[in-house]
This record gives sequence, structure tokens and C-alpha cells, in this order.
Amino acid sequence: MATTSSRRQLGRSVSIVGAGMSGFGAFADKDSRDLFVEAFQDLLDHLDQGMDIEDIECAYVGNYSSDLFEHQGHTAPIIADWLGMTPIPVTRIENACASSGSALREGIMAIASGMYDIVLVGGMEKMTNLPTEGVTDVLATAADALYEVPTGLTFPGIFGAIAKAHMDRYETNLDHLLKVAIKNHVNGSKNPKAQFNVTIRNLMERRVTRAEQRGQPVPDYNSEMDFLNDPGANPWIAWPLRLYDCAPITDGAACVLLVASDIAHNFTDKPVTIAGTGQASGRPLHDADELTSLSAARTAAARAYEMAGVTADDIQVAEVHDCFTIAEIVASEDLGFFEPGEGARALDEGRTALDGDKPINTSGGLKAKGHPVGASGVAQVAEIFHQLRGEAGERQVDNPDLEVGLTHNVGGTGGTCVVNILRKG
Amino acid sequence: MATTSSRRQLGRSVSIVGAGMSGFGAFADKDSRDLFVEAFQDLLDHLDQGMDIEDIECAYVGNYSSDLFEHQGHTAPIIADWLGMTPIPVTRIENACASSGSALREGIMAIASGMYDIVLVGGMEKMTNLPTEGVTDVLATAADALYEVPTGLTFPGIFGAIAKAHMDRYETNLDHLLKVAIKNHVNGSKNPKAQFNVTIRNLMERRVTRAEQRGQPVPDYNSEMDFLNDPGANPWIAWPLRLYDCAPITDGAACVLLVASDIAHNFTDKPVTIAGTGQASGRPLHDADELTSLSAARTAAARAYEMAGVTADDIQVAEVHDCFTIAEIVASEDLGFFEPGEGARALDEGRTALDGDKPINTSGGLKAKGHPVGASGVAQVAEIFHQLRGEAGERQVDNPDLEVGLTHNVGGTGGTCVVNILRKG
Repeated sequence: MATTSSRRQLGRSVSIVGAGMSGFGAFADKDSRDLFVEAFQDLLDHLDQGMDIEDIECAYVGNYSSDLFEHQGHTAPIIADWLGMTPIPVTRIENACASSGSALREGIMAIASGMYDIVLVGGMEKMTNLPTEGVTDVLATAADALYEVPTGLTFPGIFGAIAKAHMDRYETNLDHLLKVAIKNHVNGSKNPKAQFNVTIRNLMERRVTRAEQRGQPVPDYNSEMDFLNDPGANPWIAWPLRLYDCAPITDGAACVLLVASDIAHNFTDKPVTIAGTGQASGRPLHDADELTSLSAARTAAARAYEMAGVTADDIQVAEVHDCFTIAEIVASEDLGFFEPGEGARALDEGRTALDGDKPINTSGGLKAKGHPVGASGVAQVAEIFHQLRGEAGERQVDNPDLEVGLTHNVGGTGGTCVVNILRKG
Repeated sequence: MATTSSRRQLGRSVSIVGAGMSGFGAFADKDSRDLFVEAFQDLLDHLDQGMDIEDIECAYVGNYSSDLFEHQGHTAPIIADWLGMTPIPVTRIENACASSGSALREGIMAIASGMYDIVLVGGMEKMTNLPTEGVTDVLATAADALYEVPTGLTFPGIFGAIAKAHMDRYETNLDHLLKVAIKNHVNGSKNPKAQFNVTIRNLMERRVTRAEQRGQPVPDYNSEMDFLNDPGANPWIAWPLRLYDCAPITDGAACVLLVASDIAHNFTDKPVTIAGTGQASGRPLHDADELTSLSAARTAAARAYEMAGVTADDIQVAEVHDCFTIAEIVASEDLGFFEPGEGARALDEGRTALDGDKPINTSGGLKAKGHPVGASGVAQVAEIFHQLRGEAGERQVDNPDLEVGLTHNVGGTGGTCVVNILRKG
């Protein structure tokens, strides 16, 4: 039987030449198709050189559950229609919150296969039309409906258990979780597309001001930590996770334009190349070997690093899947940025801040940028694309040698994990 | 800008070396994951040479709406777990009833891209746990939830409108619709896996016998046509479609094993090669240019023919998407087997029967074999695989030169269409 580890290389190199995002937030007047169109328009508006939409040969749509959110299945041809791209082949990819991370891989392989040269990959989710408990119910379908959901566990509870296990095993504590939120809101405050384009400090000040204006007792906060430790401001959701440990419920879409690298310069002088890609599956949480790490993330990362010929040390900027604050800490360890249990210390040392040596979630992450689940994987890729091109504005990583970035996109509790490594040039 | 029509060739040739199906029917004690395992076990049981499951590097799962049928999203990693394949990358593909037709294409491109050599592609749907009206509601989400569903149209109504338009425009009549059902049940009666492993004549005889046994008035049927014209036996669903014009509600799964052609002989001496593949999107029916043809089917077929270097005349056996009887007639025209409007005459002449010159739906089609929507695309491919290898048993096409077959898989009302062309060897 043939073995294949040596095969994991693309037959043709693939580059990203454009990226777009809708606004991320709560948009009562927009369906997921409207958001996708908005993201695509943003992509077109920022293409370095114009293009004819008719040159796009194939598209992928990452979407988690328009079925349950909008009672709309078979979304791919609707997107094609709304973008004016009918009759190109369009396919929906669903791997829970890693849907568009997986969609990107399908786009990459479609080009590498020789079938297409120019492929649009996007993702979208419309979530805010359901009440919070409805969203929680929809998200719970990403866990195992036979073995997990009936126990009453929902995702805050599952990641609460992961946080508790991490705190028991390592020196991670409640403050570390909050530090992830503070950091990501600082980054989000520099991202005009972010759902929470605001720091935690700003939110704290607003709360004080509002109390003063209303003649209510004024909270005595000396720092963001005081604010985040006030259960009135930051209530418990599923111990040890509080409101500000959770990514919000978001409407949004994002897309990128992939082309065969040999024609990338027809589109831009600053392409970004897919250096490596890895995807792995993990067993459902009730069968997982441990709670403090997602095995699929480790496997996906190993494959991506191998393909790109780099190690964790070579990654200069990363977008990781911080659906909950603990998830960012676990990701930073699973990706090999830090040793197991050392993610919290890295936070204390500011290493993952925008000016640290390993900036993570410069976009604000899912926490502050927002988490329209089917869009998040491609939105991460869009952020790294902008960072490597030096066009991330106020949140640009200040490193003239910035060359290699990574995205880490998780579905469920690690049932799916996708890691992509991008390289400038 | 690069043009690409010359590009539509795979970087590496891809072959099918195994196929499996679960039983198709109503299985109250089985979930979709159980059915997928059953299909995979069938594949393994019939592989010409044994294999190590660990050699499978990647998998795709076509599934329409486990979300709404089973309140389970993110099914791909669950399937990997149940097959013992964790941590390989597994991705769900959703394009309504063309989900696994599209999944097959992703598997083909994954191999052609150079990333993988051995890929499992399957599809599944568990439908019978909902009452018929619930199933109709789920299927309606494959139409446009904003512009079509609110009109009250469901799929029988939509295909009823297509049938009416075809009858108005051409010489197609009610009898032609029924002839599709009669033919496909004859084929299904020769397929042990079919949900309706029985001819319409058998069903007619059963009805007579039952009436006799119960002392009820015995219907005076001289032919299957009399039976099918009896509204007591074959009630109207959505004029001009009756019960026997509709594919049934089915639980089932199917899968195929794809490998790089250069290693196919490690698995079998009788591989079947992917000669061509085409997929296209179509605008929603409310925006379609005509009702008597699905534009996506014509486009997908043209691409598949071009890639395979064959014409419609070269196709010796085909599985087409007969979700309703009229859909088979339309498909036979869209694929170029017959001129527009000539599909009905071809039926009259028996050309699409098992012993005709253009046998269609030798498996029994969706009509008699059953239509677990996410599985149907791959189940069609499995049938052509068996036909080309001469292992289709009683329903084997009697043609010693059988070499080229085709599958035609439709999502919604042609929002998606996938055409695959397979070649022996």
C-alpha cells in the first residue's frame, strides 16, 4: 500500500489576492446572503487591480447552520445568484465553527487539482434573529446530540469544564482568562469592523458614567480587573467563565479570493501564499483523552507546519479560535507557541499582545471582533492577509520582517480543527 | 486575465476502487451515523483486496439536513469517530439533494491536488423519524426561504409545475410520467438494496389479493396503468403528480473509495476512472428562464462531457435524479440523450429500459431504490461502478462493451447540478 506523508504537497501553489468582510455585529435588517454580498463588495473595493467577476470559476460557502438560524438550506446557489455568479459551481461546507476554515481548504485543493485558477471562498452566519437561548441550542448541535447534549451541557459549560481542568492542572487562574478578554478588546478597539470596537477600559468608564448620570451608586473600579470582577458588570455564565469570557453572538460574513500563484501578479503585487494547511478530526468530548488540549488542533498544526516547512517558532502573528477566553490559552499551547501550561504565563508577560513577540488575535479575535460562526475561519485568514501586507491600520504588528502568519479555527470542542499558514509573497 | 477552459483537467487521474450501500428504507432503530457505518462495512466487505482502514487519509460526508432531521450538526467528525478514522480530516458537504454528488467532486479534487492518495466519500440521510409533513418542510428549505417557500410551494408542487409546463410545451402526458415509475420499479425489483424491491405489477397484485382476503370490492385492473390511474391506489399529490410519481422518504447511506489512479491496482484489477465531472449552479426557480429544463444540468453536463472527451451519445448507462417522474424525463433531455421534448417518446419506445439502448436508472432510481437525499449522489455512482464492473446482478445491463456511464444529481430545483462520467478501467 502506498504511504503518503511525502505527498502532502499541493500540485500547484495557491495565493490569496484579496479579502473582504462585512461589518460584524447585530443587523436586524440583513440576512446571511446580504452579509455575504457586503463582504464580497468589500473584497472588490479593496482589490489592488480590478477584475471581472466572470473570471471567478468556482466558489465555496462556509456556513454552520442557516438551516436552524434562517430555515434555509442549500445556501450555496443562492449566494452565487446574489453575487451574479450563476452558473459557476458553488458548494456549502459545514464543519460547525470551522466551516469556513474547511471551505478555504476546499478552495485551495480545487486550484491545486488543476480544475480551476480563480476561486472565491467565503463564510457567513446570521445568528441574532434567534434569542440567546435559541442560539445556544443551535450551537449545541455541534456537540454530540446522542451522547453530550442530553446531559444538559452547552458550549459555555463545555468550555467551562475545559477551563476548570486547565486551572486544576496548571497555574492558570481566573485573572488569566480575563486578561485574554482585555487584550482582545484592546485589539478590537483598533479594528473598525469589530463588533466590539471598544476596550474593556472604555466599557468600564461607560458603566461609571452611566451610574453617575442616573444618580445610581457609582462603582469603585481601580482597574479593568475590578470591573470584570464585578458580577453586576460581568455575570457568571458557566463557572469559571463569565460574560466577558465568551465570544458574542454575531451576524457577519467574510471572503477571500484564491488564485493559482502563477497568475497572482495579475491581481496584486502583494500576494500572500498558502504555505501550509492542516485539518484534523477529534473524537467527541465525551470520548476525548484529556480536557486541557484539543488533539485535533495539535494534529492539524503538525500537518500544516510540516507542509510549510516551518515550526511554531517561525509564526510571527496568529489568529486563534477564542470562542471562550480559555480557548485562546489552550490554542496557544496546542499550536506549540508555548509549552503546555505555559499559555497563562505568556499572557502575564504580554507576549501575545499586539507589541509582544507572539501577537495573537490582532483583529480582536472572536471575542471582540465577533463570531459569526460560519464566517470566522475566513475572517481570520483575512486578518493575517492584511497583517502580512502591512495594511492592518492601527492594529498592524510593528515588525518590518513580518512574513509568516497562522490561523487556527475550531469546530465544536475540537471535533474539527483547521490550521492554515500564510506567507507573504 | 488568464482564461481557464483549457485548464479543466485534473492534475492527477482519480479512480473508484470500492463502493458500498446500507439498506435503503425506513429504519426506526438507526441514526444516520449507523447507516454510514453500514455502508462503509458493505464497501469493505466487497473490496477486491483487503485494506487497512488507516490508509484512508481524508473523508467527505454529503448530508443535506441532519440539522433539521436529527438536530445534529457537525456530523463529519462523528462519522470519522464511528468509523475509527479520527484524526483524519473529514468535511461535510451540503448542496441539498446533490450533497454527495458535490462531495464526490471534493474527494476527486483532494486527490488531484496532490494532498491525498486515498479518500473516502459518502453520503447519508435519516428522514423517517419525522412525519411526512415534517420531511416536506425540511426539504422546502432547499428552495428559497424568502421568495419561494412563503408562496406555499413545496417540492411536489414545484415539480408538478415543471410537469405541467412540459406537458403544455411538448407531447408529454400523464401516462409518460407513470411509465417512468413502472420502469424504475422493474429495475428496483432486481435490486436487493432498494427500498421498493418490487414492481408496480406486484403492488397491483397485492392490492387485489388484499381486497379479496378482506372481502372488499376487488379492483378491476387490466394493467399497471389501470392500477396507477386508480386514485384509491395512487392518489393525487400535486397535479399532475400522483403518489407513484414521487420518490419515497428514505433512510440510507452510501460510500465510495477514491484513490489516485496510479495506485488503483493495489486495490482491484477492475478500477473505474473518473473521466469527467461537472457542477453548476442555477438561479432559484422564481428567477429561472424556463420550467421545462434545468439550466444547471445542461451546464454541468457540458463541462463533464468536455472534460471526458465524450458526447451524450457515448453514454451507455446513466443514473439520473428522478426525485419525481417528470425529473427523469427532463434529465434525459438536459443531458442530451434526447432532444428537448423527446424524452417521453424515448420512454414509449423503451429506450431507457434495462434492455434499451440508453438504460436509465438501472438501480431503480430514486423512485424505487429510495432517496435518502444526502446519500443519493454517491449511491448513483455506486450503481454505475457496479454496472461498469459487470457486477449488477439481475439488473446488469446486457452489453459486453459497457464502458462509459454517467450520474446526474440535482439539488433543489436545479440550484445545484452535478454530472459525473465514469469509465471502466
